[in-house]
Amino acid sequence: MHDTDDPDHDDTDTTDESHAETAQTADTPDEYERLVSEFGADPLTDEQRARFPDAPPLVRRGLAYAGRDLDRFLASAEAGERVSVVTGVGPSGPMHLGHVVAFSLAKYLQEAFGAFVSIPLSDDEKYCTREQTLAETRAYTRDNLRDVLAFGFDPDRTRIVVDTADADVLYPLATALAKDVTPATYEAVYGEASNVGESFYPAMQAAHLLLPQLVDGPHPTTVPIAVDQDPHVRLARDLAAKERFPVSKPGALLAKFLPALSGPGKMSSSDDAPRIDLTADRETVRDVVLEHAYSGGQDSLDAHREHGGDPEVDVAFQYLRAVFEPDDETLERLDREYRSGDLLTGELKAHAADRISEFLEAHQSRRPSDDELDEVLEPYLLTDDERERALSRVGLGPGVSRVD
Amino acid sequence: MHDTDDPDHDDTDTTDESHAETAQTADTPDEYERLVSEFGADPLTDEQRARFPDAPPLVRRGLAYAGRDLDRFLASAEAGERVSVVTGVGPSGPMHLGHVVAFSLAKYLQEAFGAFVSIPLSDDEKYCTREQTLAETRAYTRDNLRDVLAFGFDPDRTRIVVDTADADVLYPLATALAKDVTPATYEAVYGEASNVGESFYPAMQAAHLLLPQLVDGPHPTTVPIAVDQDPHVRLARDLAAKERFPVSKPGALLAKFLPALSGPGKMSSSDDAPRIDLTADRETVRDVVLEHAYSGGQDSLDAHREHGGDPEVDVAFQYLRAVFEPDDETLERLDREYRSGDLLTGELKAHAADRISEFLEAHQSRRPSDDELDEVLEPYLLTDDERERALSRVGLGPGVSRVD
Repeated sequence: MHDTDDPDHDDTDTTDESHAETAQTADTPDEYERLVSEFGADPLTDEQRARFPDAPPLVRRGLAYAGRDLDRFLASAEAGERVSVVTGVGPSGPMHLGHVVAFSLAKYLQEAFGAFVSIPLSDDEKYCTREQTLAETRAYTRDNLRDVLAFGFDPDRTRIVVDTADADVLYPLATALAKDVTPATYEAVYGEASNVGESFYPAMQAAHLLLPQLVDGPHPTTVPIAVDQDPHVRLARDLAAKERFPVSKPGALLAKFLPALSGPGKMSSSDDAPRIDLTADRETVRDVVLEHAYSGGQDSLDAHREHGGDPEVDVAFQYLRAVFEPDDETLERLDREYRSGDLLTGELKAHAADRISEFLEAHQSRRPSDDELDEVLEPYLLTDDERERALSRVGLGPGVSRVD
Repeated sequence: MHDTDDPDHDDTDTTDESHAETAQTADTPDEYERLVSEFGADPLTDEQRARFPDAPPLVRRGLAYAGRDLDRFLASAEAGERVSVVTGVGPSGPMHLGHVVAFSLAKYLQEAFGAFVSIPLSDDEKYCTREQTLAETRAYTRDNLRDVLAFGFDPDRTRIVVDTADADVLYPLATALAKDVTPATYEAVYGEASNVGESFYPAMQAAHLLLPQLVDGPHPTTVPIAVDQDPHVRLARDLAAKERFPVSKPGALLAKFLPALSGPGKMSSSDDAPRIDLTADRETVRDVVLEHAYSGGQDSLDAHREHGGDPEVDVAFQYLRAVFEPDDETLERLDREYRSGDLLTGELKAHAADRISEFLEAHQSRRPSDDELDEVLEPYLLTDDERERALSRVGLGPGVSRVD
């Protein structure tokens, strides 16, 4: 693996990596292609990659593969101007390794550029689209908040909102935007809704994506997202383009999914597929990786020694490559030895399990208890002043509001 | 006119009044009939009318003509148990005489039975369905609130909510209910929505109608409404029947519209038809009634003296009959003299204008200024404890919420 962060790196060397990318995402190459060609996202260029200081594996190894308005974001970030990142989670179960991609990118952008990070938890959407009560959803929300806080965002530059708990500001903003979301638009983007809570949600999600600008005025925003969430960004961009409110189009940094353990497909909080939650202990991680991670190795030891394994389809390798093995030399060695057959599937998995556990143990050491949650969360909440500013920008000045 | 509040009154005497009712509402008799027969509302019986102490003109003269679960409401009210009334307004312009029917009924039910009154202002719906910005909607909301307060509800037994300003509690409740409102239900009841804010609104309106029970536990609720709002009540009843939350079906007290000045049709805040706002002064009332009120009189003075007028189609008379002439003997005299031709159209209109102005001058004397609004409104707002109780009943306990 080469470090694409190196501006001097030879373009001809990318051939193998390009191929690797296609192989790795064989389940959805069409979707990735389509986004870039049909919906107007721009492939991330080497020149752009080079502008990310100390780029994390996700950026320099190609999982972050396309963007929208990324140059504008980078230019403002480089100039020390205000930029924001929005990334959220829908509370439908425990957070898991699949959530690490977007939150790690957001954390990196905060550290690298001082970006403000806005983190919405869409409990309303999960309640309306899943078989879960609001009480269950709230319990997932509290659990997810503990993980969000464990990522260690800077409270001075981070705001966390929960749709039902911050409805005082989010619902009016969503209503402001809902007026321009027709049922036809909804159906074109999402298909048929099962209830009117679900069909309202795109307005709420647009409020999430525009919240940093509604609070603090127009500025470049980027949304690190997996391909399936790009429609939300496109809708928010369309709404911003209507110029009803003082916001510019939010940009995006599109990343490929971390594959599910069992191979192709996205990891989910709410199904029964094997999964590594962010609270998993070392033993669980090892057991789950060894038992369930889709292997690129051969069926027998002899065959593996003779033909070697294929890191491009091996889920343990993909996890290391995407996030958990930041050291490029180590990753190249694993790639080489696995291909040659010197490294066995079990050994590769054990390495992956160790790296994942190291990550999770650090994460868990920062994870507040449920008792601590409210106190730890407090500095991340929108202030009254921020709420009022956002409401003012959609035309709802003070007055009439609840008198506290 | 006879007082149907009299339990000894002879049923055979109602013939003329029944006929009068049909004539008066010739524009929508089908709708009135359909509600009773097809949608399961019950015609208000004389026995029920007799249970309203000191019944106001609206009840004893037949404008309140049907109900849903009214016996349950009356039984609890008579037993001194908790009962609630919900009636609201959509801020799309100044409040006018058309709003007096429901608010007067609510005020009466509070005075007669100690009913709690819950008053939602659906600014979200008006913004989403009209050509008005949120800032304009908010200005209408403040103006409407001043009129709502002028009705003189008891602040210890009255709560006023504004959808965007009380979204902290209303949006989670609406979301709780939205899960059971399918797009098919929406379309069957309301037709095609123009945006997802509009299609979400039935969930919000159901939250309004169930709010008293979500705050204070299951108890009989009635909604004094005009026929066009009955679908909202039916939807809220269907949602209550699902037993997802601890609420019983809200009942209804269905009243006929106060006709528009120009005759058949409902008065509206947002069109250009002549209208008497609750802030109109005596001169304006007189001018508007004389110029625009649809007359049941004859075209010429001679013809009128000879043939007499028809009070059943005369708008000035209808206003007096519905609300503004509480004295039955006076109303009977006007009816008799108008029919005989002794009372001229101009004289009947002048009487109506006087009575309306007396009502409005008293109303305006209680109407707070915009500067006074926030202070006068404060005791009518949901308390923090009431908000928490309502959220708890849908499964959203404390915690995660904004830390104030």
